[in-house]
Amino acid sequence: MKIAQVSPLWESVPPKLYGGTERVVSYITEELVRQGHDVTLFASGDSVTSARLVSACPQALRLNSGIFNRDAPLTGLMEMAFGSPGDFDLIHSHLDFFGFPLARRSRIPIVTTLHGRLDLPEMEPVYREFAELPLVSISHAQRKPLPWSNWVATVYHGMPLDLYSPHPDGGNYLAFLGRIAPEKRPDHAIEIAKRTGMPLRIAAKVDPADREYFHKTIEPLLDHPLVEFLGEITDAQKNDFLGNAYALVCPYDWPEPFGLVLIEAIACGTPVVAYRRGSIPEVIDDGVTGFVCDSLDGMVQAIGQLPLLNRQRCRQVFEERFTVERMVRDYVATYEQLVNEGPAGAASEGDHLILKS
Amino acid sequence: MKIAQVSPLWESVPPKLYGGTERVVSYITEELVRQGHDVTLFASGDSVTSARLVSACPQALRLNSGIFNRDAPLTGLMEMAFGSPGDFDLIHSHLDFFGFPLARRSRIPIVTTLHGRLDLPEMEPVYREFAELPLVSISHAQRKPLPWSNWVATVYHGMPLDLYSPHPDGGNYLAFLGRIAPEKRPDHAIEIAKRTGMPLRIAAKVDPADREYFHKTIEPLLDHPLVEFLGEITDAQKNDFLGNAYALVCPYDWPEPFGLVLIEAIACGTPVVAYRRGSIPEVIDDGVTGFVCDSLDGMVQAIGQLPLLNRQRCRQVFEERFTVERMVRDYVATYEQLVNEGPAGAASEGDHLILKS
Repeated sequence: MKIAQVSPLWESVPPKLYGGTERVVSYITEELVRQGHDVTLFASGDSVTSARLVSACPQALRLNSGIFNRDAPLTGLMEMAFGSPGDFDLIHSHLDFFGFPLARRSRIPIVTTLHGRLDLPEMEPVYREFAELPLVSISHAQRKPLPWSNWVATVYHGMPLDLYSPHPDGGNYLAFLGRIAPEKRPDHAIEIAKRTGMPLRIAAKVDPADREYFHKTIEPLLDHPLVEFLGEITDAQKNDFLGNAYALVCPYDWPEPFGLVLIEAIACGTPVVAYRRGSIPEVIDDGVTGFVCDSLDGMVQAIGQLPLLNRQRCRQVFEERFTVERMVRDYVATYEQLVNEGPAGAASEGDHLILKS
Repeated sequence: MKIAQVSPLWESVPPKLYGGTERVVSYITEELVRQGHDVTLFASGDSVTSARLVSACPQALRLNSGIFNRDAPLTGLMEMAFGSPGDFDLIHSHLDFFGFPLARRSRIPIVTTLHGRLDLPEMEPVYREFAELPLVSISHAQRKPLPWSNWVATVYHGMPLDLYSPHPDGGNYLAFLGRIAPEKRPDHAIEIAKRTGMPLRIAAKVDPADREYFHKTIEPLLDHPLVEFLGEITDAQKNDFLGNAYALVCPYDWPEPFGLVLIEAIACGTPVVAYRRGSIPEVIDDGVTGFVCDSLDGMVQAIGQLPLLNRQRCRQVFEERFTVERMVRDYVATYEQLVNEGPAGAASEGDHLILKS
């Protein structure tokens, strides 16, 4: 198939450091190429891909402090990618609702994977307006606020088989990986370390928006012999950081739409201890690849039960459920279904015009 | 004519406090209605208008701290306003480049007034991509970075005749009104006050982005007997704040695209002392409604020459050049020209498709 992948411009594809969406876009793109598809990637010019790269701006926007107006390259990207679809069979958008006005008017199918949380009240009107457009969720839980959308599939994220290597023995510390933010509850991770007496290593970025929270709430907690703060780490460092951990703790207190780090951990053989929020019970097989808990007490107890789990089995579940091959197989099946059905917007555009005027 | 006005959602129309674009949208809308046109205003739901109001979100976004994703209502607005134009003769967009993808595909003319600076390098690609779309500048100077755009008119801003009243006598202080920001050089205003020995009153808002600049650079300068900081003031307060001033000082060090406050001052009869940047020499008649200066020394000298100017003549120039009637007369002439020519996008869309695929 001739397929376009449209990435946000916030990070390069793949991202240099943190960045879930662009990382998944990279996995999908490379695997589609490997499977013999003709793939064009619309992304920032500093992206690296074996597909045809169409650059919407020279540099990814997050690390480019010289950019003042971030909406300008995004509007350019939308016109380039969705405005004149050329001879693609299908366009796969990762831009949330940004592509919807042009997707509705497209001569070819445009399917959008939603990568974020959908439970903010201001999101509902825009998704209602474009309710006919085909959407892919990254967990069933993610769909909950918008049950009436045109969901065509849930496709769980996947990763290259060899990106993370099995670490059969694990180590003696708990790992916290991601972003320092109130909804990620790094304070609970620290509390778990103190209550269990187990060392905690925190590898996390601090966004400008979260700097006050970090300095006021988290930094004072870091001065404890059990706690070590490493800052933001690279992909190469993640393999051993996760693989040498006893467990990954994910005390997230928000409706996590997927949680890429969860499958990174089990790819290393490292089990996950997390709260029952959003996608967690779908991604973690409770009692097999980790424990899904309902309280801080439950988390502390779960740490005590970790010897019951088998690290080889964690890796095995990763290989069964979360490889990039499986993810791309699911996407290609979805693409084929949509190509057979034709564009969602074109057929019904007349109706919209009549309904709205 | 049947006309749609499409406002940003950042402030209500008119804004409750600061907000140049939405204020001008309100002036245009109300005057079009007064002149007998059939006008629909797309804006936040807390807007107040005699036109038909179509609400894109319940509350303006700047003062609504409950909104997390500001792009969602904006995308909804674009679809509502540009997506199915109903039976409008013409749509007038005030959304910068945001409306361009749908404007290109519109069956009726969509003209965009650009309200901001255009000299940021990341803006050029998006304006190049949509170079065929008709644009209105708010000064000739504003066009400078994009000379190849499809400029159809320069329409200087205008205001209702009676909004500000002539203050024939003025007072004994210098006024600074607007936003505390490095490019507005409030520090120069303070320096001018100190050098001339004339009191300075500053009425200005401080945006979150400028808080550090305010605390670090400006706040220490406020502790001076000649300087008084009033914070953000209302429209009602502005009449006397400006009218009772000896002069308005505008030491702006950026390519000001218009500068609404300049004509608010001269509507009161208060002359303006400003640097020769952007629109300033077009809006201020040097030696008549104020002085256009090339340096801080020049500004100080200009204050000494203010007795040469006539406050009645300032008001008279306002009535000749900057009333809302004149502004709307210019816009209606532009609308009529565009309606006669037909939509910019529809005619040439085929070309774009060929060029891009």
